[in-house]
Amino acid sequence: MNELAITLDVKSSVYLYEQIYQHIKNEIVEGKLSEKERLPSTRALAEHLQIARSTVELAYEQLVSEGYIEAKPYKGYFVCSIGELYHLERERIVKKQEIKKQSPYLYDLTPNGIEMKAFPFSTWRRISKNVLAEHQRDIFEPGHPKGDFEFRNTICRYVYSFRGVNCEPEQIIVGAGNDYLLLLLGKIIGEQQRVAMENPTYKRAYRIFSSAGCEMLTMPIDKNGMSMEHLRSSQADIAYVMPSHQFPTGVVMPIGRRIELLKWAEEAENRYVIEDDYDSEFRYKGKPIQALQAWDKKEKVIYMGTFSKSIAPAIRVSFMILPKPLLKQYERNAGFLSSTVSRIDQAILNEFIGAGHYERYLNKMRKIYREKHDCLLECLKPFKHKFHISGENAGLHILLTCKKEETSEEQLTSAAESVGIKVYGMSAYFVEEKRSDQRGEKGKSCKAVKDGYARILLGYAGLSEEEIKNALLLLQKVWL
Amino acid sequence: MNELAITLDVKSSVYLYEQIYQHIKNEIVEGKLSEKERLPSTRALAEHLQIARSTVELAYEQLVSEGYIEAKPYKGYFVCSIGELYHLERERIVKKQEIKKQSPYLYDLTPNGIEMKAFPFSTWRRISKNVLAEHQRDIFEPGHPKGDFEFRNTICRYVYSFRGVNCEPEQIIVGAGNDYLLLLLGKIIGEQQRVAMENPTYKRAYRIFSSAGCEMLTMPIDKNGMSMEHLRSSQADIAYVMPSHQFPTGVVMPIGRRIELLKWAEEAENRYVIEDDYDSEFRYKGKPIQALQAWDKKEKVIYMGTFSKSIAPAIRVSFMILPKPLLKQYERNAGFLSSTVSRIDQAILNEFIGAGHYERYLNKMRKIYREKHDCLLECLKPFKHKFHISGENAGLHILLTCKKEETSEEQLTSAAESVGIKVYGMSAYFVEEKRSDQRGEKGKSCKAVKDGYARILLGYAGLSEEEIKNALLLLQKVWL
Repeated sequence: MNELAITLDVKSSVYLYEQIYQHIKNEIVEGKLSEKERLPSTRALAEHLQIARSTVELAYEQLVSEGYIEAKPYKGYFVCSIGELYHLERERIVKKQEIKKQSPYLYDLTPNGIEMKAFPFSTWRRISKNVLAEHQRDIFEPGHPKGDFEFRNTICRYVYSFRGVNCEPEQIIVGAGNDYLLLLLGKIIGEQQRVAMENPTYKRAYRIFSSAGCEMLTMPIDKNGMSMEHLRSSQADIAYVMPSHQFPTGVVMPIGRRIELLKWAEEAENRYVIEDDYDSEFRYKGKPIQALQAWDKKEKVIYMGTFSKSIAPAIRVSFMILPKPLLKQYERNAGFLSSTVSRIDQAILNEFIGAGHYERYLNKMRKIYREKHDCLLECLKPFKHKFHISGENAGLHILLTCKKEETSEEQLTSAAESVGIKVYGMSAYFVEEKRSDQRGEKGKSCKAVKDGYARILLGYAGLSEEEIKNALLLLQKVWL
Repeated sequence: MNELAITLDVKSSVYLYEQIYQHIKNEIVEGKLSEKERLPSTRALAEHLQIARSTVELAYEQLVSEGYIEAKPYKGYFVCSIGELYHLERERIVKKQEIKKQSPYLYDLTPNGIEMKAFPFSTWRRISKNVLAEHQRDIFEPGHPKGDFEFRNTICRYVYSFRGVNCEPEQIIVGAGNDYLLLLLGKIIGEQQRVAMENPTYKRAYRIFSSAGCEMLTMPIDKNGMSMEHLRSSQADIAYVMPSHQFPTGVVMPIGRRIELLKWAEEAENRYVIEDDYDSEFRYKGKPIQALQAWDKKEKVIYMGTFSKSIAPAIRVSFMILPKPLLKQYERNAGFLSSTVSRIDQAILNEFIGAGHYERYLNKMRKIYREKHDCLLECLKPFKHKFHISGENAGLHILLTCKKEETSEEQLTSAAESVGIKVYGMSAYFVEEKRSDQRGEKGKSCKAVKDGYARILLGYAGLSEEEIKNALLLLQKVWL
């Protein structure tokens, strides 16, 4: 080939050299220029196109650096072997699925909603930009399996200041979300562990431990949390609890029960308590309550925290704090697994927390959520003769218990649906109690939550005060 | 309290309102201003400080919005309840561990090295910036458990164009690194599966499947890859292979063996082949070889690809393509698990690939790695009378096999170490063959790799040509 059928557009905003580069690249990719074919010399092409030779040289240089052509001294430029795959249809049209379903509800009172409007997007952008500007190679290199030390150090200071949690950075494992860390914890503790969970509970955790080969025991809940009587008479090795705001009941575990739980764990060497502190950031009344881990003097608590709830669900960063005796097990069973969180994300979050933005954001959100919480409670006043309200003053949802035994959960959710409102019945959060039955546990119904009275969760975090008011007015019409 | 002991620094670059805000915030955090205490009015404080009232108002507004103080109509500003935890020592000094160990080697020929110098950092930064600027709330909301549809669609097009892989976006699962996806795959296929792996192999995968409750069977390797004779006489359900460049032997599986492997899988309903295509991007001679998956007409191949090797280890993004029959098992056993990759990272990578930057970068890197590869082979010429060279022309490492049976691997690695060079002996990549022995498999030594001849891996990706030359000159002194 001695001439290329290039038509240059001198009026285009695309540089001439870029036009030449693109043209030749396309010819190669489409197979019109074949392997080992010689390109015209830069001088010849420049003359042919009536442009400066340096422009052609720039295009050829780019093609060389990207591996499309190669320069052979004294011989010229030749097309490289790009291979058959490049000749396949490049832009195969893949049917675009419509994946966003329009919600059929006017208002969705999901307990998993969060509010993002107050998020300091510009701060996040600025930090992201700085992190990428300040670091070059280093931040793209492999990180520590537990997470970068600086970030773990920041988490360590943060949990001490805000939750009273005592730990060293080497006890912290950063991971891409709670689900991942629970999978990892399953590996660390090993199979055949007997894990006690409250019932109802966070079913995702139940499923993860269950699929990790753990034997699951379900414990009833009384007004202070997991029933100690049942736990003591079980064969459990590990108790999974959410002391700051049990999901879904909203029970806040008082200090007495926490101490009892720690005592239970101290009675045998391999007993541990998993503290899932998932929405502890949000407490609206009285003093914040320290984490259970803060009272642990015997290395018995596995602490789990997340930024996915308090910052944004799309930020896949959670952390787990292992008691020192479990560190060896971590190294043996899971220490070889690479970190699941990008070092760039770790650095951004490290700066976001370290520079005080996280604290400011939490203070702001606490205020916003408190206002929504107060608004919901105000709207619920007319419901009081028919419903008992609990789980308030913390977290992002409250619990309604119907006082009339003859009203079923299904009646309440259907009535809500009939006016376009999605509410969540408690029954969905119960797990089957098969296994615990097999072990001689009676799996007794828990009086506090399984007494035939219908229970409904109302999440308010994702709605505005206006929306909460409208939704509750509609519920008032169909429930009262 | 009616006066605050604030000393303003008018010469400071910190705004006056910010100084007031900081001062009051510190007083609250340190407990010097206590709960419900009334702050001076904005007018009074402005007069006291001799500044504009609007400056004080700005500081108070900030404190209100962050939840430190609250405004009560007609009454004034009052300190909010911040709680005891804030009073704990805020900046607990955590001993900084020194975690970066200085490498004791002059040159480390690790097979896991990569080159980052040519990475288009500025492009990456620009895309990151645009992604954060263009998206607001949406990108911080929860994403699809399999990964965002747009991104899976882009991966789908990419693997079709470059690897000949046929799939639909719904078959793709995006995850935070290969290790995570292997954990997930363990959940999907379920326990008690019999997984055949080559020996030597990628031990991390072996450990993950093993800890997922799979029964591991080790297969010898001949010059074409996994021994079909051994596979056929085993009870394996799943065969794990790396056809494009087996780790660590560097064997490229020819088309004949690939077809045999697919036939084996087609002979029983629950048989599958896992294709780990970890460094397929780098092939330096001849045409790129299509993925094994491209030949699969019966939905038998589980394809695994990663961007951690081809872009940067710190980018924790890999993907797995499930054959359609496994999608139901995915939904049942793992579909409830949240995605482990931040949606921001997905959007950045989506743009990086979609706009052609990834292709350009790979072409550039293929050229850079080929030059290093050629340089290493050139430097190895004097070694040829003593060593057999294999595993070249693809991937990022080659294999030396010592021709003298009396030279041990340990002698070679020690000699290299004595001149400051770290090389990697093949023996570290063998797994114990216990289980396969128990099942009646003889676990016969594989002639091609386990014949008493010492084998050494030489990785070159992380070194410059200059460094490769220096390292090989030193090895020449002690090995020849």
